[in-house]
Amino acid sequence: MAGSSTDFKAVILAGGSGERFWPLSTPERPKQFLRVFGGESLLRQSVTRLLGLVRFEDVFVVTSKALVSATRKELPEIPPGNIVGEPMRRDTAAAVALGVAMAGKGVIGVFSSDQMVRDAKGFRETVKKAVAKAKSGPKIVTIGIKPTFASTGFGYVDPVTKRFAEKPDRKKASEYLKKGYLWNAGMFIATQSTFRRAFVAHATELTALSESNGAPERLKAVYEALPKISFDYAIMEKYGDVDVVPGDFGWDDVGSFAAFDTYFPHDRAGNVREGPCTVVESKGNICVARSARISLLGVDNLVVVTTPDAVLVASKDRISEMKKLFAK
Amino acid sequence: MAGSSTDFKAVILAGGSGERFWPLSTPERPKQFLRVFGGESLLRQSVTRLLGLVRFEDVFVVTSKALVSATRKELPEIPPGNIVGEPMRRDTAAAVALGVAMAGKGVIGVFSSDQMVRDAKGFRETVKKAVAKAKSGPKIVTIGIKPTFASTGFGYVDPVTKRFAEKPDRKKASEYLKKGYLWNAGMFIATQSTFRRAFVAHATELTALSESNGAPERLKAVYEALPKISFDYAIMEKYGDVDVVPGDFGWDDVGSFAAFDTYFPHDRAGNVREGPCTVVESKGNICVARSARISLLGVDNLVVVTTPDAVLVASKDRISEMKKLFAK
Repeated sequence: MAGSSTDFKAVILAGGSGERFWPLSTPERPKQFLRVFGGESLLRQSVTRLLGLVRFEDVFVVTSKALVSATRKELPEIPPGNIVGEPMRRDTAAAVALGVAMAGKGVIGVFSSDQMVRDAKGFRETVKKAVAKAKSGPKIVTIGIKPTFASTGFGYVDPVTKRFAEKPDRKKASEYLKKGYLWNAGMFIATQSTFRRAFVAHATELTALSESNGAPERLKAVYEALPKISFDYAIMEKYGDVDVVPGDFGWDDVGSFAAFDTYFPHDRAGNVREGPCTVVESKGNICVARSARISLLGVDNLVVVTTPDAVLVASKDRISEMKKLFAK
Repeated sequence: MAGSSTDFKAVILAGGSGERFWPLSTPERPKQFLRVFGGESLLRQSVTRLLGLVRFEDVFVVTSKALVSATRKELPEIPPGNIVGEPMRRDTAAAVALGVAMAGKGVIGVFSSDQMVRDAKGFRETVKKAVAKAKSGPKIVTIGIKPTFASTGFGYVDPVTKRFAEKPDRKKASEYLKKGYLWNAGMFIATQSTFRRAFVAHATELTALSESNGAPERLKAVYEALPKISFDYAIMEKYGDVDVVPGDFGWDDVGSFAAFDTYFPHDRAGNVREGPCTVVESKGNICVARSARISLLGVDNLVVVTTPDAVLVASKDRISEMKKLFAK
């Protein structure tokens, strides 16, 4: 296959909890299974956009135990043994360590399962550059996304100093934008031995996992002892030999219902409608009817989503606070 | 029965269309069947609050053809023949004419089926005064409600000149309030012969109906020829011999969901909740969940109502414009 590189493997992190798109997504059908953004689920898109760089058998998926069978069903071309469920949530450092262990020798790219990429070709070209840089080791190469606004929802990476910065407040985000920082999109490319070295150096408690063969039998005992820590925090903010490849391929992390404004057509009053929605003198709403018809009268900038099991009515600018609903 | 007066009959107008409380009420179960305001439906309350002045067999109900059987079921103590369905909607003048024809000789009081009265005893005492004034004829006596605010949703009556005024704009409503005008609550008391004389004088097209025996067989042909006109407009604004008895008994026409704010308890954030509602950082909402749980996040002053068939999300201050939804 043109451009394919058999010593490159992909690890897809697919352990979403389904909160941010509730009630459309649920713990049983989290965000990566959403099909609203085009015909394929986000999960399947995350794999198919890599084809050309990898074959299905080179893709390894780390999900939660409860989602293994749904994930295998969604990706029937991937050998079932490549799709492993974590016995409990331990954040991304553990998931990366497990994926690295499963993927085997060669260059490994770690990607998320719930992001949008509009320009898949541009994405693949960027990944190829990153793979070339990572091949010679010992670099961990990240793909830094050119920001489109001063987001407080993403971490940043300085392409000059290669320093990682956590999610900033509003003021810092504007500074980062001016300084030319890039979004950290959670894409990391390195050889298996480089990843393993990084765990040995900065997260010794994950070494056993990253150096295992990923066998799921003993996973529960191993996981119980692990801390909850992100890969950014455990490794990327500490690892000395980081490189950054800038990427500009229409990336979006589809963080909340607000993304519907980007991906769906609007009516003349700026409403996004999916399913039967009657809208009277209402502007800028996102209306998703998956059960009974929704009627809006004189309301603006709301997210209204109904399924047979739940009804959500939220202010669009508060939608990032969805977790508060689950705390109740 | 103490205070009962066997020459007094009541006509209840019960032809609501179910729009203002949609989707809780529907054309098949309009507002008068709502049970949310206490244990009995508004329709049943409109009859039971008259007991003491009338017996069940003295009550005549004019509803729509489609609602006859539901109305008889709701009021099993009333002789079925006293409950008649109009073959089509022709506004209140026709309904009063039909009720007057059915009720027979003596004093007749016309009342609505979808209003709230908090002080039923005070109500009955006021009606008794009106009956006493009407007994000697030829007066049509109306009960004028002491206004609690400058409503633009009701007609008014001047207790001095006995003049009727249509629903005013905001400015006029304030003037009316200052001048001591009363709300026209659609309660009219007169003898059968006075009602009939009024139709002869001011609405000749309704004479045949008001002087019939109310027999439903020929109603369709009669109704087809009738104009759509309200009793206020056809008779009360023109009839010369009107009297007004002021009433102050906690009357409310329960015009819209906004009335829930009056009749239901509020949480600390001023939300009214019926059924499973999760409310996070949201104020002043009316949340009525009749099917799936409703979750509100960061929204204020909305009316959110769900049934298995429909979901309504409306701004509370626009709720009087519900008809716009049905126009769609």
